[in-house]
Amino acid sequence: MLLSETESEQRIIRLQKELKGSRIGGALFIHPIDVFYFSGARQTSTLWVPAEGSPLLLVRESLNRALEESCITDIRPFPSSKEFLDIIPAEINKIGFTYDVVPVQQFNYYSTLLPGRELVDISTINRELRSVKSPWELTQMHASGDKLCEVFAQIPEFLKPGMREIDLAAEFEYRLCKAGSEGYLQVRAFNQELFRGLVVSGDNAACPGFFDGPVTGRGLSAASPQGASSAVIETNVPILMDFAGIFNGYIVDMTRMFVIGSLGPELLHAFDTALEIQSYLAENLKPGNICEELFAGALEKATKAGLGKNFMGAPGENAKFVGHGVGLELDEFPAIAQGFKVVLQAGQVIALEPKFVLPGLGVIGIENDFAVGDGGGVRITKLSDEIVFI
Amino acid sequence: MLLSETESEQRIIRLQKELKGSRIGGALFIHPIDVFYFSGARQTSTLWVPAEGSPLLLVRESLNRALEESCITDIRPFPSSKEFLDIIPAEINKIGFTYDVVPVQQFNYYSTLLPGRELVDISTINRELRSVKSPWELTQMHASGDKLCEVFAQIPEFLKPGMREIDLAAEFEYRLCKAGSEGYLQVRAFNQELFRGLVVSGDNAACPGFFDGPVTGRGLSAASPQGASSAVIETNVPILMDFAGIFNGYIVDMTRMFVIGSLGPELLHAFDTALEIQSYLAENLKPGNICEELFAGALEKATKAGLGKNFMGAPGENAKFVGHGVGLELDEFPAIAQGFKVVLQAGQVIALEPKFVLPGLGVIGIENDFAVGDGGGVRITKLSDEIVFI
Repeated sequence: MLLSETESEQRIIRLQKELKGSRIGGALFIHPIDVFYFSGARQTSTLWVPAEGSPLLLVRESLNRALEESCITDIRPFPSSKEFLDIIPAEINKIGFTYDVVPVQQFNYYSTLLPGRELVDISTINRELRSVKSPWELTQMHASGDKLCEVFAQIPEFLKPGMREIDLAAEFEYRLCKAGSEGYLQVRAFNQELFRGLVVSGDNAACPGFFDGPVTGRGLSAASPQGASSAVIETNVPILMDFAGIFNGYIVDMTRMFVIGSLGPELLHAFDTALEIQSYLAENLKPGNICEELFAGALEKATKAGLGKNFMGAPGENAKFVGHGVGLELDEFPAIAQGFKVVLQAGQVIALEPKFVLPGLGVIGIENDFAVGDGGGVRITKLSDEIVFI
Repeated sequence: MLLSETESEQRIIRLQKELKGSRIGGALFIHPIDVFYFSGARQTSTLWVPAEGSPLLLVRESLNRALEESCITDIRPFPSSKEFLDIIPAEINKIGFTYDVVPVQQFNYYSTLLPGRELVDISTINRELRSVKSPWELTQMHASGDKLCEVFAQIPEFLKPGMREIDLAAEFEYRLCKAGSEGYLQVRAFNQELFRGLVVSGDNAACPGFFDGPVTGRGLSAASPQGASSAVIETNVPILMDFAGIFNGYIVDMTRMFVIGSLGPELLHAFDTALEIQSYLAENLKPGNICEELFAGALEKATKAGLGKNFMGAPGENAKFVGHGVGLELDEFPAIAQGFKVVLQAGQVIALEPKFVLPGLGVIGIENDFAVGDGGGVRITKLSDEIVFI
């Protein structure tokens, strides 16, 4: 079993404390990642967690697999409507539900199953809870980081002149798959998706798009307007490779820069500024620091370097963040972003990704994952930051 | 532009007819695939289609990209709440919304934006509409089919003894990526996901799971319990490769069987039965035939062959379908399934996948895509069905 009973129990206890604090009688989880986080199984099922008492995993498909993989003691087939009412005591009126990811049809289905009860939104409670990683989770993330770094370290062996962006993506993804990275990258926000990552070079990198990040890429068609394109990678332009590695569900996310040839001084200056901002942010990833203040500090450094308008996007299209939580999903809490007034907590893991978009020249920057710690960020992706010149 | 103005207009006209028939004043689409289908752009945006009049694309990110990619005439930045009310005339009371995919938070957001209006579910209207492909879409799907077949045809060159399932997946996905297949596979149903496809062999293939299909695979961890595992592929067992190819957004889905060595008579009998069922179904993919009757006919053939209990799942875990619509999403309408009483319509594209799960031996079967036509199914994936013996 991947998830131990103790680990699951501790998560349930933390949730129950939050539920009680908000006077919510229990929570129903149906989003697979939420179910996995608490139960250890990503099967199609409904997890009922009462504010007091033991959780119950109700499985639609596959029950055998859930019994094999989940550490929850009470696992049953999904019950009839009548039996469902017996499971959730009549005195429980307020029931937590994750409004951020659950479709309206599912909401209506559970509302009908539970007449007279109030399904209340616990999206924020759920995400805040999960933002803080346990020691076991941090170990998982360090292992993921090591594995992803090993694949990144191989890039100089296969990056060759004349390749298309998709050829480079294919070579990287081939090695990532063989290294055991799980394929499907979980993103929570509605409308967001990412395959394995991005290979973007030169002007294509600066192409705007739907992705909530500084870089989207041109992609292969209007149906898939993101990531690598079929353009041949030119010499003397920045090649940005931003990839996630996923092992036992735990995602790490990193970016490195490559060049066939050399780069002009504007791009090198922007890269140095990105490293400087990364150092500043990493030093300040301490419990108690406020997310939006760190973003403001990063923006200030970019502005001082004469690159404020290029920070995290093309001029006029700048994203207002420089880091995002990462764990079982690519977009976990917290964000190092404008308007994010929350304080950092020990054990949160954040991908810091200061990047600059220089229209006509391309995109340049860095990305590494750090755990928030008393002495500042503890680095998870340990490969050298330096640009690799081919 | 990928989508022509004429193609988009015809889709909008078909939708408007349905809306008027249901006395719905207009429809709001926010799911990216729905927005793409009607507008030609998969940017983060809201598409307003009044039951009468011209559609309007309201873009959050990226406006520039939407202007470049969409054939909608009226494209604007997403408006303020006040302006939004001006866009949707006060006399329009009933507004269609896709309850199947839109999260509760988004529903509540639009409900607040439009006080006093009724957001009604148009999930079925939307899916039925999209199930029928235009001649242009059929051309796209045939092109996707040819490209995916080219990659499948290469498998005998790289399938070698001693490979792990993930090694074989890596080799296939490498070539699929280089052939220009877009990465992210769209699946509409809540809780469902698939990376690029499945490589499963022997017993691992028979492992149950959350995926709504006859085959799930063991995967790499409980967090990603699907698809290829790290097990070495044995000799004399069926190796099932079920992959999707995506080009210009159009998905084709096919399965072929491979063996290193030979197969016993039970498996060969099951394979012959799968081919026989495929022929029966393909001949009957004619407008007017009823989906559930075709499923019943397929099950009857399986039963006659002594394989009823192994059809589409391990005994006791049998899926009650044998085919599914495919197009911009992997799980489009209609399903050739028990309880699916709808009639087939010309231009629908269906992946037929008769498969048998023989516990202890593995999974064997076939999958090809066909367009419903007056003379029966028109085959889209033309590669030979035969088992490849290595």
